[in-house]
Amino acid sequence: MAKSSTGNFFEDFRLGQEIVHAVPRTVTTGDVSLYSALYGMRFAVQSSGAFAQSLGLRRAPIDNLLLFHVIFGKTVPDISLNAVANLGYAECRFLEQAWPGDSFTARSTVIGLRENANGKTGIVYVRSTGYDSSGKPVLTFVRWVMVNKRDQSAPAPEVVIPQTAAAVSGSDLVIPEGLDFSAYDPALAGSPFLFDDYQVGEKIDHIDGMTIEEAEHQIATRLYQNTAKGHFDGLAQKSSRFGRRIVYGGHVISLARGLSFNGLANAPFIAAINGGRHVNPVAGGDTVYAWSEIIDRHAFEHRTDVGALRVRTIATRDLPCAAHPAPGSDAEPSVLLDLDYWVLVPRGAG
Amino acid sequence: MAKSSTGNFFEDFRLGQEIVHAVPRTVTTGDVSLYSALYGMRFAVQSSGAFAQSLGLRRAPIDNLLLFHVIFGKTVPDISLNAVANLGYAECRFLEQAWPGDSFTARSTVIGLRENANGKTGIVYVRSTGYDSSGKPVLTFVRWVMVNKRDQSAPAPEVVIPQTAAAVSGSDLVIPEGLDFSAYDPALAGSPFLFDDYQVGEKIDHIDGMTIEEAEHQIATRLYQNTAKGHFDGLAQKSSRFGRRIVYGGHVISLARGLSFNGLANAPFIAAINGGRHVNPVAGGDTVYAWSEIIDRHAFEHRTDVGALRVRTIATRDLPCAAHPAPGSDAEPSVLLDLDYWVLVPRGAG
Amino acid sequence: MAKSSTGNFFEDFRLGQEIVHAVPRTVTTGDVSLYSALYGMRFAVQSSGAFAQSLGLRRAPIDNLLLFHVIFGKTVPDISLNAVANLGYAECRFLEQAWPGDSFTARSTVIGLRENANGKTGIVYVRSTGYDSSGKPVLTFVRWVMVNKRDQSAPAPEVVIPQTAAAVSGSDLVIPEGLDFSAYDPALAGSPFLFDDYQVGEKIDHIDGMTIEEAEHQIATRLYQNTAKGHFDGLAQKSSRFGRRIVYGGHVISLARGLSFNGLANAPFIAAINGGRHVNPVAGGDTVYAWSEIIDRHAFEHRTDVGALRVRTIATRDLPCAAHPAPGSDAEPSVLLDLDYWVLVPRGAG
Repeated sequence: MAKSSTGNFFEDFRLGQEIVHAVPRTVTTGDVSLYSALYGMRFAVQSSGAFAQSLGLRRAPIDNLLLFHVIFGKTVPDISLNAVANLGYAECRFLEQAWPGDSFTARSTVIGLRENANGKTGIVYVRSTGYDSSGKPVLTFVRWVMVNKRDQSAPAPEVVIPQTAAAVSGSDLVIPEGLDFSAYDPALAGSPFLFDDYQVGEKIDHIDGMTIEEAEHQIATRLYQNTAKGHFDGLAQKSSRFGRRIVYGGHVISLARGLSFNGLANAPFIAAINGGRHVNPVAGGDTVYAWSEIIDRHAFEHRTDVGALRVRTIATRDLPCAAHPAPGSDAEPSVLLDLDYWVLVPRGAG
Repeated sequence: MAKSSTGNFFEDFRLGQEIVHAVPRTVTTGDVSLYSALYGMRFAVQSSGAFAQSLGLRRAPIDNLLLFHVIFGKTVPDISLNAVANLGYAECRFLEQAWPGDSFTARSTVIGLRENANGKTGIVYVRSTGYDSSGKPVLTFVRWVMVNKRDQSAPAPEVVIPQTAAAVSGSDLVIPEGLDFSAYDPALAGSPFLFDDYQVGEKIDHIDGMTIEEAEHQIATRLYQNTAKGHFDGLAQKSSRFGRRIVYGGHVISLARGLSFNGLANAPFIAAINGGRHVNPVAGGDTVYAWSEIIDRHAFEHRTDVGALRVRTIATRDLPCAAHPAPGSDAEPSVLLDLDYWVLVPRGAG
Repeated sequence: MAKSSTGNFFEDFRLGQEIVHAVPRTVTTGDVSLYSALYGMRFAVQSSGAFAQSLGLRRAPIDNLLLFHVIFGKTVPDISLNAVANLGYAECRFLEQAWPGDSFTARSTVIGLRENANGKTGIVYVRSTGYDSSGKPVLTFVRWVMVNKRDQSAPAPEVVIPQTAAAVSGSDLVIPEGLDFSAYDPALAGSPFLFDDYQVGEKIDHIDGMTIEEAEHQIATRLYQNTAKGHFDGLAQKSSRFGRRIVYGGHVISLARGLSFNGLANAPFIAAINGGRHVNPVAGGDTVYAWSEIIDRHAFEHRTDVGALRVRTIATRDLPCAAHPAPGSDAEPSVLLDLDYWVLVPRGAG
């Protein structure tokens, strides 16, 4: 029997199927260093143990997106090895802070299936959850991917399309246990702007650009143990639709997040990802820029130290963002990412 | 007196000479992270401390090949700085698991010498051993390299060619202390196939390809503190036989090992390397593929939880391996590596 | 109000101004691994905890230059984001060893200002100091940069040019607390040459070359959280004077330091940097070589185990250094760096 796996095809998925993903993973300070060096991360809470402790945390937590990529990576060999496209994300919530040295696992449940009219592909909806070594869920998200069929004559399953929320409700956001932003030092963190300084509708150009090198996105994507072939096999990609290696979409999310520090320095925690779309594929040599719009605000009951901003961050290729280029405009061919998420931000003294 | 070293030449070696290699090295979880990110390593025992502990180990051990590269790297400035070619390896045995945070040193003994007929080069045979900070040997191997003479008129030494075993005997393989594979979870590890599922003669295509970037092999080779010039000095290499930087052969071994996960996911330990040959030089831009053949099996006395498979893994450049391309065939110009080694694999419940 | 920062311009600086720099940073063994892998560092004290402990240190300290880059990086968003050029360094002293796991911050004082005659730029002199988590200063240095004015009509400040020493005095060098070189093992460290073997005027070719890849200098510079645009934004740099990304000058300093191991292996500590000049800009693809001259020696009172060598290291692009190419000669267009610094070296048994 063939020992190597070619991954699951559309007809291999069953509604309600539970998938235990390989491979368990300890995330260490070494992973954190590499993550920082790949994106230039500067959020003070994750950068400094002393700063994190001044806010009531035991140490510097793992960056939310690093955890996301690690858990996402585990799902790839089972869910998306034969994916034609990652279609969307929803209802991603960060439930517990994760700490360097802990070990993580991932499991998914198939929550929807829909064969496409062409009979060649279908859409698989899964809810994936990451767990720490004590078994507590640390993050959960829904994603849907278009997956090839192995055998076009395989019968189509019953169509089930799950309902997902357009956005995580502000009241469902989890504030990290023990976090107290009262002693937050904005000068050390890099910006004077706190929760009450941001208005809905405000647009922020993150100014800086970052050129992607092939070695960088490959190192990142392997760090996440993500095995999707298109990121690594330059030879096979020559004969693909795209003609070359495609950068892992999550790499662009982290690049945009790194760039967003210039304008959102006091947003060290992502509490939720409401949705995201990889608008165009990305390749080595592209220079990524980003801008953000504040699209909602949430004040927590009984908490005067912390608020949540709902942010839409748009990343572009080879196009600076002073003019706020958006999908649906003439600039769409230059847009790479359209991400909608909640961040936690300290509130100034009332 | 010249303070910088140009390395040893053939006439600098003496039979029986003992060489203490610089530089001692602490291997940390940072090194482990970088190693994982360079090759996409996914063997569960090394990936997860929790998984390692479920098998009786104190924590996730250092990947055998990372340890090998670190010890090998130490030998380079003394043994192979003036090497024309790495001719072979033999009798490489992993004696103890190595743990992040420990410090390692290396020593070698010259066990053979043979000047070549051209009077310009000679072959040096050494046995190199790595030690942990308590002085226990952690791995040992024989290698032989062709080294330039400084002075062609220097007299040839007596010819001594050491006998090396064609393969390490199964009964000489060391099972890591404390390891008990009884509780091994194949689903978490990524494959249902255990020791008894593999047959001698079985061939496995590892399917995936990995394109090498110059930055990647340079970062890897410096991580190992390997100072061989050909890997780093692009300018000098322009006027070399090869015309460009050559990738450290060990980088290809680790790439092939990383690829071999798809088909050999339950082989987390390399117990021995019987032999290896770098069939052709490798350069940045090459896409590496690999396939393996099971060439022997060993059942340990008194152990029902673990067996050993002897594996031959062949790596190629720009040639997928579904057809099992091998040295000695028309495919030889595309073959990069031919490696013969023992891995430890859990046995299923009897 | 604009949330993203475009950095300070010349007229934003005031004499005597104190600047608290973002972002605090914990330096971990992960950062150390990456630093080693980027430059191939092999100084035994920083490479091995066991070796460091044999000399009375608690563990392997953080490489002086890694600490320098981290502190320097913090100053960039405030001091040099709009710099036209880094003009010089002086009086850099390493005051305390820094240890992995500790958290660092940085502050600067403006100690000099001088508008240039063209009215478009001015020179800012700052003293920057890094602190450990207990608040102790770990390193301090002066640098001066040419910074653009935002508004050419802004009035020029009073001219104040600080006096800086041509070199740190040998008696002001700090020997790491607890360090005792008596038990130093030169064989393990990689060279037999100790303090008394080096003569003033002696020139050392470090022989090896290292080709810079774009991914490498970007990863390094982000590791240091240095946000200077010219290192990352390949698109914007196309329309710059230089036409492409410029490598962070500190990257070249560390490359030269890594190369200097071959000839100065027993100089594990930099005690001070007297001055430094980036003679020409550096780009990806350049191959860096280096040579050094011993320009002074200092014997410490009451210490027979350690001495200090004042070293001038010159790094070149695409030009091997056997002939000791120097600024001010025909070779100047190939010279990248001219660095003057003190290192601590064990003394042999008297």
